[in-house]
Amino acid sequence: MGKNITGAQLKALISSARGETKADLVLKNAGILNVFTGDIEQGDVAVTDGYIAGIGSYEGREEIDLDGGVICPGLIDSHIHIESSMTTPAGFAKAVIPHGTVAVVTDPHEIANVAGEVGISFMLESSKDLPMDVFFMLPSCVPATPLDESGAVLDADSLAHFYSEERVLGLAELMNSYGTVRGDDGIVRKIQGAEMHGRTIDGHAPMLTGNELNAYIAAGVKSDHECSVFEEAEEKLKRGQWIMIREGTAAQDLEALLPLFDDKYCGRCLLVTDDKHAGDLISKGHIDYIIRKAIKAGKSPVNGIRMATINPATYFGLKDRGAVAPGYVADLIVVDSLETFNVTKVFKNGRLISENGRLITEIKKPVTDESKYWRVLHSFNTREISPADFSVSGNGSKKRVIKLIPGEILTEEVIVDSSVLDDINKIAVIERHKNTGHTGVGYVTGYGLKKGAVASSIAHDSHNLIVVGTNDGDMALAANTVRGNEGGLAIVCDGKVLGSLALPIGGLMCDLDISGIEERLSMMKDQARQLGVPEGIDPFMTLAFTALPVIPSLRILTHGVMDVGTQSFVPVLFD
Amino acid sequence: MGKNITGAQLKALISSARGETKADLVLKNAGILNVFTGDIEQGDVAVTDGYIAGIGSYEGREEIDLDGGVICPGLIDSHIHIESSMTTPAGFAKAVIPHGTVAVVTDPHEIANVAGEVGISFMLESSKDLPMDVFFMLPSCVPATPLDESGAVLDADSLAHFYSEERVLGLAELMNSYGTVRGDDGIVRKIQGAEMHGRTIDGHAPMLTGNELNAYIAAGVKSDHECSVFEEAEEKLKRGQWIMIREGTAAQDLEALLPLFDDKYCGRCLLVTDDKHAGDLISKGHIDYIIRKAIKAGKSPVNGIRMATINPATYFGLKDRGAVAPGYVADLIVVDSLETFNVTKVFKNGRLISENGRLITEIKKPVTDESKYWRVLHSFNTREISPADFSVSGNGSKKRVIKLIPGEILTEEVIVDSSVLDDINKIAVIERHKNTGHTGVGYVTGYGLKKGAVASSIAHDSHNLIVVGTNDGDMALAANTVRGNEGGLAIVCDGKVLGSLALPIGGLMCDLDISGIEERLSMMKDQARQLGVPEGIDPFMTLAFTALPVIPSLRILTHGVMDVGTQSFVPVLFD
Repeated sequence: MGKNITGAQLKALISSARGETKADLVLKNAGILNVFTGDIEQGDVAVTDGYIAGIGSYEGREEIDLDGGVICPGLIDSHIHIESSMTTPAGFAKAVIPHGTVAVVTDPHEIANVAGEVGISFMLESSKDLPMDVFFMLPSCVPATPLDESGAVLDADSLAHFYSEERVLGLAELMNSYGTVRGDDGIVRKIQGAEMHGRTIDGHAPMLTGNELNAYIAAGVKSDHECSVFEEAEEKLKRGQWIMIREGTAAQDLEALLPLFDDKYCGRCLLVTDDKHAGDLISKGHIDYIIRKAIKAGKSPVNGIRMATINPATYFGLKDRGAVAPGYVADLIVVDSLETFNVTKVFKNGRLISENGRLITEIKKPVTDESKYWRVLHSFNTREISPADFSVSGNGSKKRVIKLIPGEILTEEVIVDSSVLDDINKIAVIERHKNTGHTGVGYVTGYGLKKGAVASSIAHDSHNLIVVGTNDGDMALAANTVRGNEGGLAIVCDGKVLGSLALPIGGLMCDLDISGIEERLSMMKDQARQLGVPEGIDPFMTLAFTALPVIPSLRILTHGVMDVGTQSFVPVLFD
Repeated sequence: MGKNITGAQLKALISSARGETKADLVLKNAGILNVFTGDIEQGDVAVTDGYIAGIGSYEGREEIDLDGGVICPGLIDSHIHIESSMTTPAGFAKAVIPHGTVAVVTDPHEIANVAGEVGISFMLESSKDLPMDVFFMLPSCVPATPLDESGAVLDADSLAHFYSEERVLGLAELMNSYGTVRGDDGIVRKIQGAEMHGRTIDGHAPMLTGNELNAYIAAGVKSDHECSVFEEAEEKLKRGQWIMIREGTAAQDLEALLPLFDDKYCGRCLLVTDDKHAGDLISKGHIDYIIRKAIKAGKSPVNGIRMATINPATYFGLKDRGAVAPGYVADLIVVDSLETFNVTKVFKNGRLISENGRLITEIKKPVTDESKYWRVLHSFNTREISPADFSVSGNGSKKRVIKLIPGEILTEEVIVDSSVLDDINKIAVIERHKNTGHTGVGYVTGYGLKKGAVASSIAHDSHNLIVVGTNDGDMALAANTVRGNEGGLAIVCDGKVLGSLALPIGGLMCDLDISGIEERLSMMKDQARQLGVPEGIDPFMTLAFTALPVIPSLRILTHGVMDVGTQSFVPVLFD
């Protein structure tokens, strides 16, 4: 039952469950997946006041003949950063509801790095009245590293007050596993905050094993979504963690983790996407896609569905979700069959909201108070950029160059004679949160621009303004185009703006639907290819990771080029 | 992790998990049952500050070589009324800890019927510092029926304040399923109270099925412990209830429910005893006995153990219990093997408290404030009873007699000529909570006394004073003996007290160990047999149920004899 149901609602629900009064809605003529036993049952599903009243023989004020198919609980994505889709929670809901997603658990890590608590509040408010439930985990590592210049710093006290919000389910992926297993004070306080409020703590600890893993789990970290090999997942599961099987845009672990779909393990596993981009949502789907992919690989549909329904409900303590049973929220999907798993209908709180892949409910843009969310809606705080800002400091006979690797987000260091120009672009990160004027400038190879420049305000994790180009004039124009849009992407050539996507919400998101975003992105990617960016390098995504100082080996930050291994800044030109 | 762990404790735990500092205790050389996968693992179990730090390779300040055997999580009884054992929580803990029980979930229904909120508070206080965790479900139906004269009435408001106590896990067995599925106001308010505080609600609805069952579950009732046939359990489990498999003293459902031990169902099942008497605890055991019995019937030990460890932890939301894994409370047992399941060692919060069936820690009688708990410690409020109190009111040529049935708690109605005396005893219930003087007197057949009388202050559910006898003088002596002891049992013959057991705590419990209780009970049962009580009739337990007005068909209450079918009082002598 819902915690907030009134006495009158409860009585009405009980009465229609008994069959004493007609239910609001009765679904007839379909199989019903029982996630508790794995059986397909026959019967009517009665719904009253948004809750399931009963399964049996019922009459309703409205009755829908489903003409076959199977009724399942609605799907839950247990870990995602909505910002990565470049659309708002409303835009994201529009995109994923037709795929059967009725709830997501988001970690607003990106917007929090830009706008701190205001960013989290904005995401809470802009997601509160959607026909898809948006639950939250509180970003645990803002900034990702103290060497980075983010828009905000969130300590335990900054997070604590958010636990009064019912939709906040815990502390998000504790990326700083190094600090956690060393008992770092700030982390311990954040852990205690979540524990004190009875919430859960998600993990993020690729390849952590043995006693270090014991320590990380003993600290209270209850899940992991970074497993990329089965043995890693099995060890973590055996030590008590719930395993989030991730299949998204940036990382795909499903194939390696398929054994987790077996009965022995599936009860402690969840399905997640982590990051999901517009094009990927359009061409593949969401959680439904993961389940289909597992089925095609020969795995049990029922176990896959459990990982996106009753399992996340159990893990997150959402007591009235994840099953087709009396007293549960009537978040239901109808699929053509368990084997093909195409979602044909979606019911949210007992209301039909999507049919045959088309949303049939209106999703309004949430009203957000501009003055209250100023830091989100006007997140760009940097002066006009001039070509002179891109001059490289220092001098010397040698040049340190960041080498991009196709298909990877790892980089390598290359040292060349300072006169070498072949396939070398300039790259810069401009601090954009506090108008400090800090600008790090360096060189990159492998990005491949022959002319023009590309700029983006999506640059993990601090989301400063990153620019790459063949000349300082185009770089300034690209940067100023993004600045003028208060965030987003731009591509320019020879003093002309070829294309831009404005992302004025925190410099990360916009109000467009994902189809509009994908259309624009696709065009700009083509333009980037024409300017020389090779296949294997995503013109924007690869760029976005070039500023992330936790992945080896050379990165560009607002203070210059960083050697990740030593976590220190290194000269670009030297002898 | 424990919600209340300090930062310093957490850091110490993390540090010893990493192996940076020595653990407090390391258990070596035993298999370790992994309840998540069902595997038996090899390794050391490191414990610090009462929590499990890690499983792997460890050094401890203390190390115990277990010399084989298997380490399992400690056992949990998910539903019991401690009062039925006639000993206090401390006495009960002494009895069950050597059997591997580290936690019980008790419903203080009996003491609440005697002393209301004070009774619940008494049980909370007298169980708070034991080396066995005592969790509580709040009695939902006090009194069981308005026609009965209990010592207290508990409405939703009387219960609400108990939810501030962390050990209160929810609302206990909602026996009034009739009222629940009809949306009774008082019940709805109690349900809302539990929901509002995020707690669970236990059920009690024998044979409820179909839409009535849907209604009961839609109301929020999450479990059932009354299933006596598999099909009943399967239907309830499919509708979302957790099934408590009951094998106690008063009811044994294990054999019928053995299919629930299979993989398909076991994840939603728990093991409970409901009522467990002293003799039964001594001769058989507790939860360990249920697991052994299931194993002997060919069922998986691992699934049985899960039903008493990780499953109840999941059902009740006890996040840090039920598994041998980092961050979990170090409540551990060692068994000789999974096949024989004899508990050889018990660790509570990482401390060895029982070895080879013998408790090796001291359990003090909890200090309880006599003035605060006056209603519990002096619960008898009735004037001296005289033989004249047992005169039967009215007259007529016919006599209505309650017929006891061997091996059952059902009764039947028998009408005989009023002159018939053969195998007919007099039976009476005297109100004992408020000194109203109300005394119901009637006749019983099947109890079999040839002379003397038996009295008891254990009389479900209101626990008034019940007396049966062959003559009014012995009946008064038996009743006054119990009254003089402020509760308990008595057996008398020809003006002489043959035996008595004082139960001065609420008229239900005493401070004796279960061996002392069993010794006395056993002697008195022999005496009852000598006075004529036949095999098949438990001299005290059968008597205790003769006053319970919810079981067919004829009962004796303080206001006289009741017809359960019509819930009305009926004349004993009539024409």
